[in-house]
Amino acid sequence: MSYFSSVPNIDYEGAASTNAFAFKHYNPDAVVAGKTMREHLRFAVAYWHTLTAGGADPFGAGTAVRSWDRLSGMDLAKARVEAAFELLVKLKVPYFCFHDRDIAPEGDTLRETNRNLDTIVDIIKEHMKATGVKLLWNTANMFTHPRFVHGAGTTNNADVYAYAAAQVKKGLEVGKELGAENYVFWGGREGYETLINTDMRLELDNLARLYRMAIEYADEIGFDAQFLIEPKPKEPTKHQYDFDAATTIAFLQHYGLKDRFKLNLEANHATLAGHTFEHELRVTRMHGLLGSLDANQGDTLLGWDTDEFPTDLYATTLTMYEVLQNGGIGRGGINFDAKVRRGSFEAEDLFHAHIAGMDAYAKGLKVAARLIEDRVFEDTIARRYASFKEGIGLDIVSGKATLASLEQYAMQNNPIRNASGRQEQLKAIFNQYLLSE
Amino acid sequence: MSYFSSVPNIDYEGAASTNAFAFKHYNPDAVVAGKTMREHLRFAVAYWHTLTAGGADPFGAGTAVRSWDRLSGMDLAKARVEAAFELLVKLKVPYFCFHDRDIAPEGDTLRETNRNLDTIVDIIKEHMKATGVKLLWNTANMFTHPRFVHGAGTTNNADVYAYAAAQVKKGLEVGKELGAENYVFWGGREGYETLINTDMRLELDNLARLYRMAIEYADEIGFDAQFLIEPKPKEPTKHQYDFDAATTIAFLQHYGLKDRFKLNLEANHATLAGHTFEHELRVTRMHGLLGSLDANQGDTLLGWDTDEFPTDLYATTLTMYEVLQNGGIGRGGINFDAKVRRGSFEAEDLFHAHIAGMDAYAKGLKVAARLIEDRVFEDTIARRYASFKEGIGLDIVSGKATLASLEQYAMQNNPIRNASGRQEQLKAIFNQYLLSE
Amino acid sequence: MSYFSSVPNIDYEGAASTNAFAFKHYNPDAVVAGKTMREHLRFAVAYWHTLTAGGADPFGAGTAVRSWDRLSGMDLAKARVEAAFELLVKLKVPYFCFHDRDIAPEGDTLRETNRNLDTIVDIIKEHMKATGVKLLWNTANMFTHPRFVHGAGTTNNADVYAYAAAQVKKGLEVGKELGAENYVFWGGREGYETLINTDMRLELDNLARLYRMAIEYADEIGFDAQFLIEPKPKEPTKHQYDFDAATTIAFLQHYGLKDRFKLNLEANHATLAGHTFEHELRVTRMHGLLGSLDANQGDTLLGWDTDEFPTDLYATTLTMYEVLQNGGIGRGGINFDAKVRRGSFEAEDLFHAHIAGMDAYAKGLKVAARLIEDRVFEDTIARRYASFKEGIGLDIVSGKATLASLEQYAMQNNPIRNASGRQEQLKAIFNQYLLSE
Amino acid sequence: MSYFSSVPNIDYEGAASTNAFAFKHYNPDAVVAGKTMREHLRFAVAYWHTLTAGGADPFGAGTAVRSWDRLSGMDLAKARVEAAFELLVKLKVPYFCFHDRDIAPEGDTLRETNRNLDTIVDIIKEHMKATGVKLLWNTANMFTHPRFVHGAGTTNNADVYAYAAAQVKKGLEVGKELGAENYVFWGGREGYETLINTDMRLELDNLARLYRMAIEYADEIGFDAQFLIEPKPKEPTKHQYDFDAATTIAFLQHYGLKDRFKLNLEANHATLAGHTFEHELRVTRMHGLLGSLDANQGDTLLGWDTDEFPTDLYATTLTMYEVLQNGGIGRGGINFDAKVRRGSFEAEDLFHAHIAGMDAYAKGLKVAARLIEDRVFEDTIARRYASFKEGIGLDIVSGKATLASLEQYAMQNNPIRNASGRQEQLKAIFNQYLLSE
Repeated sequence: MSYFSSVPNIDYEGAASTNAFAFKHYNPDAVVAGKTMREHLRFAVAYWHTLTAGGADPFGAGTAVRSWDRLSGMDLAKARVEAAFELLVKLKVPYFCFHDRDIAPEGDTLRETNRNLDTIVDIIKEHMKATGVKLLWNTANMFTHPRFVHGAGTTNNADVYAYAAAQVKKGLEVGKELGAENYVFWGGREGYETLINTDMRLELDNLARLYRMAIEYADEIGFDAQFLIEPKPKEPTKHQYDFDAATTIAFLQHYGLKDRFKLNLEANHATLAGHTFEHELRVTRMHGLLGSLDANQGDTLLGWDTDEFPTDLYATTLTMYEVLQNGGIGRGGINFDAKVRRGSFEAEDLFHAHIAGMDAYAKGLKVAARLIEDRVFEDTIARRYASFKEGIGLDIVSGKATLASLEQYAMQNNPIRNASGRQEQLKAIFNQYLLSE
Repeated sequence: MSYFSSVPNIDYEGAASTNAFAFKHYNPDAVVAGKTMREHLRFAVAYWHTLTAGGADPFGAGTAVRSWDRLSGMDLAKARVEAAFELLVKLKVPYFCFHDRDIAPEGDTLRETNRNLDTIVDIIKEHMKATGVKLLWNTANMFTHPRFVHGAGTTNNADVYAYAAAQVKKGLEVGKELGAENYVFWGGREGYETLINTDMRLELDNLARLYRMAIEYADEIGFDAQFLIEPKPKEPTKHQYDFDAATTIAFLQHYGLKDRFKLNLEANHATLAGHTFEHELRVTRMHGLLGSLDANQGDTLLGWDTDEFPTDLYATTLTMYEVLQNGGIGRGGINFDAKVRRGSFEAEDLFHAHIAGMDAYAKGLKVAARLIEDRVFEDTIARRYASFKEGIGLDIVSGKATLASLEQYAMQNNPIRNASGRQEQLKAIFNQYLLSE
Repeated sequence: MSYFSSVPNIDYEGAASTNAFAFKHYNPDAVVAGKTMREHLRFAVAYWHTLTAGGADPFGAGTAVRSWDRLSGMDLAKARVEAAFELLVKLKVPYFCFHDRDIAPEGDTLRETNRNLDTIVDIIKEHMKATGVKLLWNTANMFTHPRFVHGAGTTNNADVYAYAAAQVKKGLEVGKELGAENYVFWGGREGYETLINTDMRLELDNLARLYRMAIEYADEIGFDAQFLIEPKPKEPTKHQYDFDAATTIAFLQHYGLKDRFKLNLEANHATLAGHTFEHELRVTRMHGLLGSLDANQGDTLLGWDTDEFPTDLYATTLTMYEVLQNGGIGRGGINFDAKVRRGSFEAEDLFHAHIAGMDAYAKGLKVAARLIEDRVFEDTIARRYASFKEGIGLDIVSGKATLASLEQYAMQNNPIRNASGRQEQLKAIFNQYLLSE
Repeated sequence: MSYFSSVPNIDYEGAASTNAFAFKHYNPDAVVAGKTMREHLRFAVAYWHTLTAGGADPFGAGTAVRSWDRLSGMDLAKARVEAAFELLVKLKVPYFCFHDRDIAPEGDTLRETNRNLDTIVDIIKEHMKATGVKLLWNTANMFTHPRFVHGAGTTNNADVYAYAAAQVKKGLEVGKELGAENYVFWGGREGYETLINTDMRLELDNLARLYRMAIEYADEIGFDAQFLIEPKPKEPTKHQYDFDAATTIAFLQHYGLKDRFKLNLEANHATLAGHTFEHELRVTRMHGLLGSLDANQGDTLLGWDTDEFPTDLYATTLTMYEVLQNGGIGRGGINFDAKVRRGSFEAEDLFHAHIAGMDAYAKGLKVAARLIEDRVFEDTIARRYASFKEGIGLDIVSGKATLASLEQYAMQNNPIRNASGRQEQLKAIFNQYLLSE
C-alpha cells in the first residue's frame, strides 16, 4: 500500500517550475565543483520529526493527519518503516537517521524493548537493501522517558546510568547491523536545572566515562562509525553541558576524547547559543572536527528550538561555503532535523517542506561554489591579511618576534594605516551571487 | 585638596544604620569562616568607570559632574590619581585596577605615550606606598583607539599587532613596577564583525602568539603576576573569541596555555553569553582556573553590558558560595567593573554605588558561609548522588564498569526509582538564609 | 481518602521555623497596612498545573507521581476534585482557577463534553460549599485541542469559531454557577505563525466580536464577573495578538471594550515580552485596568515560559508595591500559574512550591507596605518632580504653557541644573528594607 | 571642491554589473506596479549617520576618515552641507532627514544655538533649490545633551521640559522653512531607568502635552507636515515609552492624538521589541497610521541597535509588500537610518552601503510587486478565510451571530475539518519569486 498516495516521485524540473511536487534546484546528478549534488549534500530524513512526531507543543496536542494514525504498538512501528521508505524514495533522499525509540516502542522490560527494536531493525534492513537508502546515523533517545528526568550519562542515579549504558550498547549494535556511518550523542538531559543541587564535576566525569565505554565497545564489536556529539545550549534542560561547539571541544580536550569524536552541528542550536550557524561550522572545522549537520533554521525572535525546515538562502549558502572549505562533509551528511509547522499537518506538507529545504541547500551549494570559484571572499581575505606574509608580520607568524622586537618596530612606525573591511560592499556582492544563476 | 569634600570616611554601622555614607554589612575586620571580610573579598575599584568615564552612551554625551572637570591632559591625569586614592581610602577599598590609558593620556608618539604613563606610574607608586592600597591588576587598553578597529592581537594588520605587543610589554613593566598581583587581557576587539572577510585561524594563532610572548617577557623581567583572560561574548565586536569561560578554556587547552593563565570572570559578561555568573564560576573552578572577579550585574532584559553595581543578593550569595568552595579567590579579588547610572552623575553617587556593592557582597559572603557551614546544599547533593558511592555506581566511577556489565545490571533492575530534586524547597530555604542574620 | 497523606495542614510558624511544611511569612490573619494578609493576597491554586499537568515538556513525557495516576476519564476527574480541595484546605488557599478542560475530559461530542463538565461542576460546587473555597476565575481552554490549530476567536475557520463561542458560552454558565469572581481569556492560539498566510484585520475584528458576544451573554444570564484578558507575547504561537499590557490596551481602546475588560497579568509573560512584571502592573494600573495576577517567575536566560513558582523577593516586593498603590487587587487575586519543576515530581513538591510562593508574596507584601508607610520611593519622587508643582512647571501641567511661552522661559534660563536620580542609593535602601523585618 | 572625489555619479547598470559604484536594481525611472521606483521608494539619506557620525561605539573612538575632518564648529557644519548634497546628488537620493544638532553645533546659549541653525538652514535651502533634493523630515535631538539625562518631554525637571519645547518650536519653524514633508519625534530619553524613582503617569501626561503644543504651533504657523512618532523599546533608556507600534498607538488613542500623528517605523527597533519589521508595518497600516520608514537592519543575535544598512532581501521584500498593500508610503519615505560598520571607515563605504541598501529595496519592490500581481499570498488568504464569506461565518462577520446561535451550530457540526496553512510551500514559492527576475 502507499502511505502518500497523493504524492508523486519528486523530480528536478528547474527554477521556473510551478509544480509544487518538483525540485527547482536539487538535481542529484548535476555536478557542482567536481562532485554531484547527491555526493555533496548527502541529505537525510529525520525519522522522529517526519515519521514519529505529530505536532504537539507545550500548549497543544498533536495535529498531524497521517495514514497510519489508526495503528498502534508494533503495527504502527512497522507501518512507519514502510512509510519512511516510500517518502525517502519519492524524495530521492539517500540517508535517514533515527533514535532507537523512534522506530520501535518500549516494552515492559528492557529485554522486550530490545526485542521490539530487533524486529524493526530487521525490517528496516530489508528496506535499505531494496532501496539503496542508507543510515547516516542512529542514536539512543535518553531524554524522553521519565527515568531520565535528572539525566542519563549525567544522572545522579547510578541505576539510570546503567540503563543508559545498556541503551547505548544496543544502539551501537543496531548501528553496526545497519551499517550506520555515524553514531550520535545528543544530551538533552545532560545538564542541570539548578546548580544548588548539582555535582557538576561528577556528572561530567561520568559523561566522559560513558563515552569511553562506548568507544571501547564499538571497537570490540568492530563498529567503525564516526562518533558525534551534538551541542545544544538549553532546552529541555535549563543548561546543557554541550552548550555549543567551543564548549564541547573544551570537554573533548579535557577528557582526551578529541581523537574519537567529531561534532554534529545544528543550525537552530547555534542560534539558541547566540551564534550563527556558520560560526559554529568555522570553529569546528578549525579543529578538524566537522562531523555532520542537522539542517534546520530557528526563529531568532523566539527563544526555543523551532526546528523549521531551512529556507533562508543566506544561511544555506554560508553553510555550504564552510562545508566546501572543509573539503566536504566526509562521512556526515545534511540531516533535516526539522519539523513541519503544527499548522502544516497534512501528509503533503512533509514533501513540500523537504523540497523547500533540499532546494534551499542545493541553491546554497551552487552559490557557495561560485563564490569560492571566483575567490570572492578569499581574495578579500588574502589582501586584508597580506601584512602577515612579509616583514614584521612574517616575523610574528614565524615565531621570530618578541615583545621587545615588536616594541622596537612600533616605536618608529608612525602613523599606522588601516584599510576598510568593506563589509557593506561584500554583502552587496553576496546578493549579486545569490540572485544570479 | 579634597576631591570628594562632601563625603566622609565610610565606616561600618550595621544593618539598621540610616546613614547613607556607612556600611551596613561590610565590616573589614569582622571574621567570617575563618578570615576577615577584607581578606575574603579583596575589593578593588575600577579606575576606568570611577575615575575616567563620564556617563556617555551611544546616544548621549557624558553627564558626570566631577571636581576635576576643568582640567585636561596630564593635569587631569594627576588630579584623578589624587581623587582615586581619596576615594579608595574613604571607601576602605584595598585594591584598584586600571588600563594603561585610564591613568595617562596618549601622546603623539608611542614614546611620548609611555613617558606620560611613567610620570603617572611614579605618582601612583607614591600614593600606594602612602596609603597601603595595592594594585590588583593592570591591563592594556587595546580597543578604544581607532588603530584597533580590526583587532589588536587578532588584527589583520601586522603594524597594529606590533603596536599592541609594545603596549603589552609596557603594561607588564608597569605591572612589575607597581607590584600588580595579576595582569589581565580583555579582548574587546579580538573577534570579528563578519566571517566573510575574516581569517579566524590566523587571528587565533596570532592571539596565542601574543600570549606566549607576554609570558616570556614577564618571566624575563621577573614579573610574577598571575595572567588572566576575561571572557565576553560580544560588544563591542559582533562576536568575540573569548565568548565565555568554556570557550576560553578550549582556547587555552588548544594552544597549551592552560598552565599560565586563569580567568577573570565578569557577571554581566556571563549573562550576555546566556549563563548565570555562578555557572561561569563553577565551570572555571572545576578546571582550577578561577582567577579573579569583575563584580557587577547586568539587566537580563537588555542586550548590552550595563555594568551596574551589584545589588542582587541572590547573585552575590551564589558568587561567594562558589568562591568559598574554591577555597577563596587566591591572588584575585572582587573588582567593581561597574559604573554609576548615567542619571547618577554626582560625585556622591560613586560612593553610594560602591557602598551598595560592597554591602551586597559582604552580605552574600555571610549568607554563603552559613549555607556552607550548615551544609545546606552539600548534604542535599551528597544524598542525591549517593548511588555512586557503592555497588554499580562505584563500579562506574572507579572505571570497572563496561557497557556489557551495565547492560547486565540494567536487564534485571526493574523498575528504576528516582527521587525529587526538591528545587522549590531548596529555594525556600535559600530565602530563609538570606533573610535571617 | 487522602490524596496527600504525607502532608499535614500548613500553619504559620514564623521566619525561623525549620519545618518544611510550615509558612515562614504567610500568616493569613496577620494585619498589614490595614487588612489581613488573606484579604490582600487572595491566593489561588491553578488547577491545570497542580492537579492536571504531569511534567511533560517538548522533549519528555510526564514525570509526576500522583496518588490518582491509576485512574482515567471521569473517575480521574472526580479524584482530582477531591485532591484539589484537600490541597486547597491544607494550604489555606482561599481560591482556585481552572480551564474547562482541566476539570473534565472532552467527550465524543460537544454535548457529551458539556455533560462531563456539568457533572464535575456539581461536585466542585459541593466542595466549595463545604470548604468555603471560592472560584477566582474560570476560562475556556481553546488552545490544546487540534481543532484550534489556527486559532479560536482568530481562526480562519468559521466552524472552529462557532465551537469556541459555544465553549465560551458554557464557560460563562459554569462561572455563574460557581460564583466566579472573574472570567479570563488567554489567547494562546490567537496570533499567527506567519503573516504571509494571515488576514490580521479579520482575525482581530472577529476576536472583538467574540468578546462582545461574551459580554452580551454574561449580561443576559446575570453573570457579573469581571472579564479579564491575559497578555502573552508568544508561545505557543509565533506572535500572539495580546503581546503585552500596552498592546492589549490598544486593542480594547480600538474596539471600544475598555469599560468591560481588565487585564490578568503574568510575571513570566511580562519578561517574555521584554518587560519587568512591575512595568506591566504600572502601565495597567495607570489605565485603571489592573484585574488580577498570575504569579510565577521566568528564567530570563531562557526564552520560553518556565512558569516557576515565585521565590524572588525583589520581584514579589515590587509586585505588591504596585498592588498596594493600586488600592489592592479588587476582585482579582494572586493565582499561582506556576508548575513544579519536572524534576520535582513528588506530591510533596506541590506543597513545598506553594509554600515557597506564598511566603515570597507574604514577605513581599510586608516589605512593600513598609516602603510605602515610610514613603521611601514616594518622597524621592515628590522631590524629583517638585518643579512641576510651581512656576513654569505648573504652567505646563495646567495647560497654560505654549511652545512660545516655554521658549521665552528657556531663552533666559541658563544654565539648567539637574539632580542625580540616586538609583544606586535607592537600591541599597531597598536591600535594607528587604533584610530587616 | 569635491568631498568624495574618488566616487563617480552612481548609475543603474543592471544585475550583472561588476562596477561597485553602480546600481544593480535601483533604476529610478523604471516603472513598477504603475509608478516609478523613485516615486515608490522615496529614499532619504540620514544626515546623522552619514554626515555627522564617526564610528564611535561604547568601547571605542570614532574611526571615520572624512575629507572634512580638519574642520570644526560652523566651518565643519558648512562643509558637511556641501558634502551632503554632493553625496545626495551622486547617489540620486531625492530626500534627506536631520536632527537640529546634526546640521549645526550648539552655542553657549539657546539664542546662539538657534542662530547657528539659521545660518545652516539658509545654506541648506540654497542647496535644495539648486539640486531639487527635498527634506523628508526633520526632528529635534533631545537626547544627546546632558540636560536630557532624565528625559525631555518626560523629564522630571520643568526647566528641561521648557528647553525641549523651545527646541521643538524651532524645529517646526525650520521644517516649515525647508518645506519638510514630515516632522518626527523619537523619544530616546522618554522612558525610565528604574520605576522606583519615576512618576510614569506625570511623564506620559507631559509628553502628550508637548505633542499637543506642537500641533497647535504647527497649525499656528501653517506648517502642514505630517507628525510622526518613532517607536523604540529600549536603548539608550532601560525602557522607552514608545516601546513598539502597538504601545505607541495605545498612547495616541488614550490621549486623543490619533488623528494628528502617524508612525515612523524602524526595522531594527522592531526586532529589539521582539517583532519582525513586517509585523510592525502590518499593525500600523491596520490602524491607518503608516507614516514613514527608517530603513536598516539589526543583528538579531545582538541586543542593541546595530543600524546596519539593509541588505536582507527577504526583509526588504516583505517591507515593500506591506507598503504596496498600504497603497504606498504617502508623504513618508525610506530613510536610511543606517550606519556603515565601524570597520568601514572610508568615504567610499558610504556609497557602497547606500548602493547596497537601495538595490536591496529596489529588488524587494520588484519581488513584492510581482507577488501581489500574481496574488500569491492573497489567493492563499482568500481560500483560507473563505468560510467567513458565507453561512455561519458570514453571520459572525455581519454581527448576526450570538453565543447561543453559535452553540446551536456547533452542537450539530461534528467533526470539524481544518486545512493545512501550507507555510513551507509558501516559503518555497517566496524563494522562487526572489530568485527569478
